[in-house]
Amino acid sequence: MRVALGIEYDGRLFCGWQSQPGGCGVQDALERALERIGGQFIRVAAAGRTDSGVHATAQVAHFDTSVERPLNAWVRGVNGALPSGAAVLWARPVAPQFHARFSATGRAYTYLLLDRTSRPGLQAGRVGWFHRALDVGRMREAARLLLGTHDFSAFRAAECQAESPLRELRRLDIERHGELIVFRFAANAFLQRMVRNIVGSLVYVGKGRHPPQWLGGLLVGRDRSAAAPTFAPDGLYLTAVEYDSVWGLPQPCAREPLIMA
Amino acid sequence: MRVALGIEYDGRLFCGWQSQPGGCGVQDALERALERIGGQFIRVAAAGRTDSGVHATAQVAHFDTSVERPLNAWVRGVNGALPSGAAVLWARPVAPQFHARFSATGRAYTYLLLDRTSRPGLQAGRVGWFHRALDVGRMREAARLLLGTHDFSAFRAAECQAESPLRELRRLDIERHGELIVFRFAANAFLQRMVRNIVGSLVYVGKGRHPPQWLGGLLVGRDRSAAAPTFAPDGLYLTAVEYDSVWGLPQPCAREPLIMA
Repeated sequence: MRVALGIEYDGRLFCGWQSQPGGCGVQDALERALERIGGQFIRVAAAGRTDSGVHATAQVAHFDTSVERPLNAWVRGVNGALPSGAAVLWARPVAPQFHARFSATGRAYTYLLLDRTSRPGLQAGRVGWFHRALDVGRMREAARLLLGTHDFSAFRAAECQAESPLRELRRLDIERHGELIVFRFAANAFLQRMVRNIVGSLVYVGKGRHPPQWLGGLLVGRDRSAAAPTFAPDGLYLTAVEYDSVWGLPQPCAREPLIMA
Repeated sequence: MRVALGIEYDGRLFCGWQSQPGGCGVQDALERALERIGGQFIRVAAAGRTDSGVHATAQVAHFDTSVERPLNAWVRGVNGALPSGAAVLWARPVAPQFHARFSATGRAYTYLLLDRTSRPGLQAGRVGWFHRALDVGRMREAARLLLGTHDFSAFRAAECQAESPLRELRRLDIERHGELIVFRFAANAFLQRMVRNIVGSLVYVGKGRHPPQWLGGLLVGRDRSAAAPTFAPDGLYLTAVEYDSVWGLPQPCAREPLIMA
């Protein structure tokens, strides 16, 4: 039997999604909790292998098991066995052809950037930070240049293992809510560090170091070293994974992180 | 010279505002940081002595010092010396008659309650939790019965040291944002645990255990043991301290915590 799970976690408490020799990945914590409930080792596969420090409100994973448990055991039971910074939100039986990663048709990330002189205190580790006022209008103008299907090599981590650097960026909205700037990204899929690399370059535009057109030039140049440094993982949240409705997963799947009222 | 500070902190990382023998209070952390910058011991007094686990977006404190520093040293310098879960937001020189606690004319708190079957994961320690659907309409009806000046003994901690149980509750608004219920309280001042005790009793009404009128009866009865247990500190935020404009502190002073989009 194949089961899909919706999961949220605080990225500060793990060393990224992926299983690590020390057992500090979200995957490790989830596999330990599933083993407690299922009584057998259970391997999970996730839609998005988030980096260390990156949060998720709506990660999706799946696993196969030969044991029969009421669905609720895969939610409440597993939550009783997970550390407090992670929780299963829902569980659904799915067809054996479903794969959390390969069946996904789209992903969305939100980046929260605190734009004020004082560093984060209450939100330390949950928001990125820039100490001078950023021009959201300039950043929006630059963001428009990235929409559509492009070779995103300029914003790709050196260690990224994707076969192709082509991605379709479907949305890049930027809104200010007082001191907080909210970046909302949606794409068919993302290259490794793509969101944080784009945020870094948008901040260069927002603080006036480069004109908005600079981002279009970076995209065409496909040179990672020409772009800005990677922004901190602190403000990044995986907020949605999209699937065809044929799989019967909970809709809508998007879950926003908390933002300022 | 007397200086007023605006401060935010994550209550999970401290054992409450007040100085403790082990040095785990927010006050202890702030006094250590001020001493690093001022080169002398500096005692601070705060507007609200928040309990262990309670957060603040807009705590106000003051201190006296004989050393002269640029105002920015009391913000950026102190932030460099504070642990990452706390930050100074602003500093202002104030008249020697100003007192963070005794000059305050009002306080506001927000309580964030996650209302869903799964326990908090991403927001563990930052929201309260109730596992069944609460009726916000019933809770609002009950909340109205508490507005105005009353003897709030029914919602007062046994160890509360206030001279009088009379308080003027000026606002108690309840809003639902998806899974999150936001309670916003404002009063001239609050008794110890008053907000968490009222939230506990409102939850009893919201889940259908008692009718809304029950809250009015509790108020009149002035018997703490008749009310519901104290709700968890996790979801509580001190969000504003009000002062007369004569003191020249930053306005508006209210800072909402993060809520769901």
